[in-house]
Amino acid sequence: MTTTSQPITCKAMVARGPKQPLTLETITVDTPKAGEVRVKVIANALCHTDVYTLDGHDPEGLFPCILGHEAGCIVESVGEGVTSVQPGDHRTQGQGIMPDGTTRFTDAEGKPIYHFMGCSTMAEYTVLAEISCAKISKELPLEKACLFGCGVSTGLGAVWNTCKVETGASVAVFGLGAVGLAVIQGAKMAGAQRIIAVDVNPEKFASAVALGATDTVDSSKLDKPVQSHIVEMNTWGVDYTFDCTGNVSVMRAALECAHRGWGTSCVIGVAASGHEIATRPFQLVTGRTWKGTAFGGFKSRTDVPKLVQKCIDGKLPVDHFITHTFDGVGCTNDAIDALHGGKCLRAVVRY
Amino acid sequence: MTTTSQPITCKAMVARGPKQPLTLETITVDTPKAGEVRVKVIANALCHTDVYTLDGHDPEGLFPCILGHEAGCIVESVGEGVTSVQPGDHRTQGQGIMPDGTTRFTDAEGKPIYHFMGCSTMAEYTVLAEISCAKISKELPLEKACLFGCGVSTGLGAVWNTCKVETGASVAVFGLGAVGLAVIQGAKMAGAQRIIAVDVNPEKFASAVALGATDTVDSSKLDKPVQSHIVEMNTWGVDYTFDCTGNVSVMRAALECAHRGWGTSCVIGVAASGHEIATRPFQLVTGRTWKGTAFGGFKSRTDVPKLVQKCIDGKLPVDHFITHTFDGVGCTNDAIDALHGGKCLRAVVRY
Repeated sequence: MTTTSQPITCKAMVARGPKQPLTLETITVDTPKAGEVRVKVIANALCHTDVYTLDGHDPEGLFPCILGHEAGCIVESVGEGVTSVQPGDHRTQGQGIMPDGTTRFTDAEGKPIYHFMGCSTMAEYTVLAEISCAKISKELPLEKACLFGCGVSTGLGAVWNTCKVETGASVAVFGLGAVGLAVIQGAKMAGAQRIIAVDVNPEKFASAVALGATDTVDSSKLDKPVQSHIVEMNTWGVDYTFDCTGNVSVMRAALECAHRGWGTSCVIGVAASGHEIATRPFQLVTGRTWKGTAFGGFKSRTDVPKLVQKCIDGKLPVDHFITHTFDGVGCTNDAIDALHGGKCLRAVVRY
Repeated sequence: MTTTSQPITCKAMVARGPKQPLTLETITVDTPKAGEVRVKVIANALCHTDVYTLDGHDPEGLFPCILGHEAGCIVESVGEGVTSVQPGDHRTQGQGIMPDGTTRFTDAEGKPIYHFMGCSTMAEYTVLAEISCAKISKELPLEKACLFGCGVSTGLGAVWNTCKVETGASVAVFGLGAVGLAVIQGAKMAGAQRIIAVDVNPEKFASAVALGATDTVDSSKLDKPVQSHIVEMNTWGVDYTFDCTGNVSVMRAALECAHRGWGTSCVIGVAASGHEIATRPFQLVTGRTWKGTAFGGFKSRTDVPKLVQKCIDGKLPVDHFITHTFDGVGCTNDAIDALHGGKCLRAVVRY
């Protein structure tokens, strides 16, 4: 299982088709080609984007495939020309795309299995492009470090990079999953004065307040549109708003309660295929800005190692995100169930 | 007609209702109240927003009213507490709103006539809030200075303030009326390297090229969406795009040909009531920013005098915008006809 020049046979959870449970299979992982890296996955966190694709909402989703893109791994072997990582290095996942679009996976019958986001970390071993690897300190356990591979970094970066929230700013966050809570945490660290946390599930509010939210709004209990409510709460709206739901109606609400004249709204959630955002152009002409973010504007290879170091230094705690842990890649369906359950922030599967 | 303490009787073009020609009437203009200024209008330029309201597209339009908001005037008298202007000062119109919402106009039967945008410059005399007055140099004839009251300033400011177009940038401008041409002029002055001018009327292209456009696109002649065409012309799109049409489909196209990763699109045109902009949120998540501008982000009282000075200094020519001139407020319907004709940039009526 650890030879560096031969294909590896290992276990993986394969997504055979949309809306089907993953199947535990024995697969073969090819050797890394030039510019590629083969890694042993140590811990993989579930992200809603995996589930979004598994549920058939991603028009570009290809099956059969191996999902998973938020992982902490150890480099097992490297292909020709790879210089930035070497066997033994710890790495976490950025959002890369396999440069040549081909597959390194085959199933028990020898048929190819597609990659996903250039990562495919729901397998004990996977192959990635060197440019998708972020080499990180070995001090942080990989079951924590994996969180920086997607959602948590995205939320933090939306605040710090995409919107550049400043000291004293007012913020509203829609959707209090892991990304929304990371936005709150990032806003608090940036010195935001007022942080309004919005969800339809009041069970989410305690964590939000613990991380720095100053107000909570249960939008299901209002007798007016949530944007009107927030505009009234903070005269003329708030400086920065963040959609962390993927719901296009919420994205509209978030824009429309950004402050007239200078408010900025950032779309973070991934919308279902075919869904569109809309608003009256008057909302923009009166000074609002509508933005979006992918991976929070972080450069994964250079910035993720810094986030990991900040965590090691105690400046960026992430333990609160890990609400569920499982052991063995075969437990991934259980982790997905947990994520669907509504009480989960991040379910980490240790391989 | 010039007493400072009495109402003034003068001529005005009154909009009696939507979709009707303006009627030339004798009106009474009240004395300015505290914080207000009464001005003699010397020159008024037609803006599409006047026509938009006259055509019944503005849900907030009130009739009967006196339209007009892009004017060069001389202060006739000032109300109590007014200190920033005095009789004789030249001024041009910013976009203000009458602070107390009441009217200073009555018709021949003594019935009130509404103001418009706090300006109502389709009258020989009008009353404005002091805060709506931008005091300018007397060196520039008011028939030129009036252009800085709305459209031209808006186009320039969208480039310089709202989007901060930098040297070497690529730009696409949709709609080559006065605002679109001002965008081109502003982009050229900002050092943009490539300026793509888009319209469905190829007769507009000569002016665009004269002002600095490097490419022209007749979007009515394409066999693909204009955004796809522009993305192909300038790989991955252009740095900044501007909608100067008020058409929500064009606003979408403008966003979608802004450069992936960092492109910014600015809505300048005013859309018809009830029309909404829409796009896939993916367009934002992949790094585009959607903004809008009102009056180009200029502070009218402090910035318009600077623009006028720049014009006096020969650094900001505006003569090319004045394609039609008329004499007498009674010619305003002719000016509107000219604006509708499609060959007009700005029709200036000298009173």
